[in-house]
Amino acid sequence: MKAEIITIGDEILIGQIIDTNSSWLGQELGKMGISVVHRASVSDQQLHIKQALNDATKRADIIIMTGGLGPTKDDVTKHTLANYFGSELILNDEVLEWVSKIFRMRKLPMIDSNRNQAMVPANCDVLFNSSGTAPGMWFDVDGKIFISMPGVPFEMKAIFEEHCVMRLQKRFNLPAIIHRTIQTCSIGESFLAKKIEDLENNLPKHIKLAYLPNVGQVRLRFSGYHSNQEILKAEMDTIIANLYERIGEYIFGEEDDSLQKVVGILLKGKEKTLATAESCTGGYLAHLITSVPGSSNYYQGSVISYANEIKINELNVSPETLKTVGAVSEDCVKQMAEGVRKKLNTDYAISTSGIAGPDGGSAEKPIGTVWIAVSSKTQTIAQQFNMGDNRERTIHRTALQGLDMLRKMLLEE
Amino acid sequence: MKAEIITIGDEILIGQIIDTNSSWLGQELGKMGISVVHRASVSDQQLHIKQALNDATKRADIIIMTGGLGPTKDDVTKHTLANYFGSELILNDEVLEWVSKIFRMRKLPMIDSNRNQAMVPANCDVLFNSSGTAPGMWFDVDGKIFISMPGVPFEMKAIFEEHCVMRLQKRFNLPAIIHRTIQTCSIGESFLAKKIEDLENNLPKHIKLAYLPNVGQVRLRFSGYHSNQEILKAEMDTIIANLYERIGEYIFGEEDDSLQKVVGILLKGKEKTLATAESCTGGYLAHLITSVPGSSNYYQGSVISYANEIKINELNVSPETLKTVGAVSEDCVKQMAEGVRKKLNTDYAISTSGIAGPDGGSAEKPIGTVWIAVSSKTQTIAQQFNMGDNRERTIHRTALQGLDMLRKMLLEE
Repeated sequence: MKAEIITIGDEILIGQIIDTNSSWLGQELGKMGISVVHRASVSDQQLHIKQALNDATKRADIIIMTGGLGPTKDDVTKHTLANYFGSELILNDEVLEWVSKIFRMRKLPMIDSNRNQAMVPANCDVLFNSSGTAPGMWFDVDGKIFISMPGVPFEMKAIFEEHCVMRLQKRFNLPAIIHRTIQTCSIGESFLAKKIEDLENNLPKHIKLAYLPNVGQVRLRFSGYHSNQEILKAEMDTIIANLYERIGEYIFGEEDDSLQKVVGILLKGKEKTLATAESCTGGYLAHLITSVPGSSNYYQGSVISYANEIKINELNVSPETLKTVGAVSEDCVKQMAEGVRKKLNTDYAISTSGIAGPDGGSAEKPIGTVWIAVSSKTQTIAQQFNMGDNRERTIHRTALQGLDMLRKMLLEE
Repeated sequence: MKAEIITIGDEILIGQIIDTNSSWLGQELGKMGISVVHRASVSDQQLHIKQALNDATKRADIIIMTGGLGPTKDDVTKHTLANYFGSELILNDEVLEWVSKIFRMRKLPMIDSNRNQAMVPANCDVLFNSSGTAPGMWFDVDGKIFISMPGVPFEMKAIFEEHCVMRLQKRFNLPAIIHRTIQTCSIGESFLAKKIEDLENNLPKHIKLAYLPNVGQVRLRFSGYHSNQEILKAEMDTIIANLYERIGEYIFGEEDDSLQKVVGILLKGKEKTLATAESCTGGYLAHLITSVPGSSNYYQGSVISYANEIKINELNVSPETLKTVGAVSEDCVKQMAEGVRKKLNTDYAISTSGIAGPDGGSAEKPIGTVWIAVSSKTQTIAQQFNMGDNRERTIHRTALQGLDMLRKMLLEE
């Protein structure tokens, strides 16, 4: 079953708002076994909306529109739909009752434009809007379903969940679709692809693999389509199991997992605590860790030692080390990690020191040179990286790499 | 001049990622006087991409594509474009040189799929990608411009800013346009609008004002269109001068200024140093400060005291304070700010302590309650806020508010 999403509104085209409705709908439709084949955004003009509808009916069985249902003049979706289907606007008593009730509750006077919210095309089923005044609309015309909903995200979501899911399931006999996302880090997209080339080539035709790279991470998304949900699930499980066998060391989680969340779960499970000592990441590592709700259960704090004196005074880094091999060195990050672990009295620590740029690079230590250490009560491990010449990405990659090094240590110990 | 944006990739259709590229491009094109008339998202399939291109050429003069340029098999945009234009892929030596350099720098071996990044359609101009391996492409065919860029946002933005803006201005002889952005903080959108209502109403017709709110900040963007650049510039200068007179206390900068950059410039100008002590912001404040290149000139470091013991041991907060009024209190943040300023031996310090949620709220101190202090060698000032019930936004707003309090202190002292 194929769907198309049409978002209506000038504010989307000029980029004043980011269209989050379409991605939410894409996810929800996918879960139901409906694949989105196209998305379009058009202006609040009858002609554009009608053209988009004509194009969509050539591609999709289900056409979902959001936006253009407000009480102001610039919103024309309802009139356009009545006109498109050769229908006319009629007053819906139930909607009028609801709109009046909302205005009574809010103690606001009702004007004509509000009353007009209760006018709907004669050929639609009204989808009651429990969160606002503009009703959703369901049209069943020539074997295709057209759904129109308000653009306000929470109103749209409520209408879709309360009415559309059930109606669509009933109206169509839907095949099973399964998506599985595997989260990897510390390996580039092309190397990953090389490592699993044969697995990818041997995938059955109804299962597709997509690489979704982000700074320091690559997500692998498998999408399977089959008439039988059980068979598909079993096939997917086998593929994922093979994947873990092949590249398990790079996999840190599935679906919406983040490294900081996974590390937090490991620490909490072992009842261990963590501290950080950051130089080049300048607080970003601590920020990632503390962005997880409940992180105060295992995360104690950090010493951000941008200045060398702080490395010496607060983290017990030897002045000799700084003089001979410098702050961006194996010795320094090891001393930082051990220093902060002891000072803040935690089980584990991560430390970072590097040259994020744009200044400070040298022939020996070019911009992007980074040392990271992780320390436990029994060992301290350090590793060198080159993170490239972009300050922001170096900070980002270094923080993620530090979390991944800790994750591996936690899994081993 | 009309543009259409086509985003390519299954991950957009199934809603796994939110398309932020299109809104960014919509804004940037709008600033140039180019209006986006349609947006489409299509799958990674040759047929769909070609159909979208056919439809777009009927509506627009400029067709901008993002996505589908990665080194893996699921990315087909480049082949599709070569095929669509009846061209063929040829090796571009400059791109190959660049890709090889990136791999040498990262000390990584190069495989065939990486080398293929340097293959481009013979009929395109290469738009050099300074941030990644996939080049952008510019096609000038039958009076229409087709631009293809990678989907990774920072790569797309760099290519658009470095190459496309100038090329489009030249190619289409665009009218004089001036944009001026004024950055404000610590005041809400509606209060701001009220304060400058008459200024806004008296703007000449060819100058428009847009309010662009963000977490904790509102940008005012004035866009002027005129045949005479000099006249327009003078008009704009007068408007901006009036604005400073009216709401100067809320203006922290212009154009791309950030609070952390402005604070950095003030500190550097006075040759003063800064330290931070963070509880609820958990490193985000330090991250903002250190995201500014050269911040090591004035920023010394931070003590992130998520645990109360660290507040006591490292920041010299009195155990009595924590016992009687708690960590989220005026006394505590003042002691934190003074403690870290003395410990790290700096001229100024900022401290934060609050309840970011989702747990930890109480009737007396609900979620979102935050105390912030700024301290110099002569005074320490603390202020209480309620930042709302969203963890991420509370962290963000608190860090910005702390920077603004320091900014005001630096301007006064």
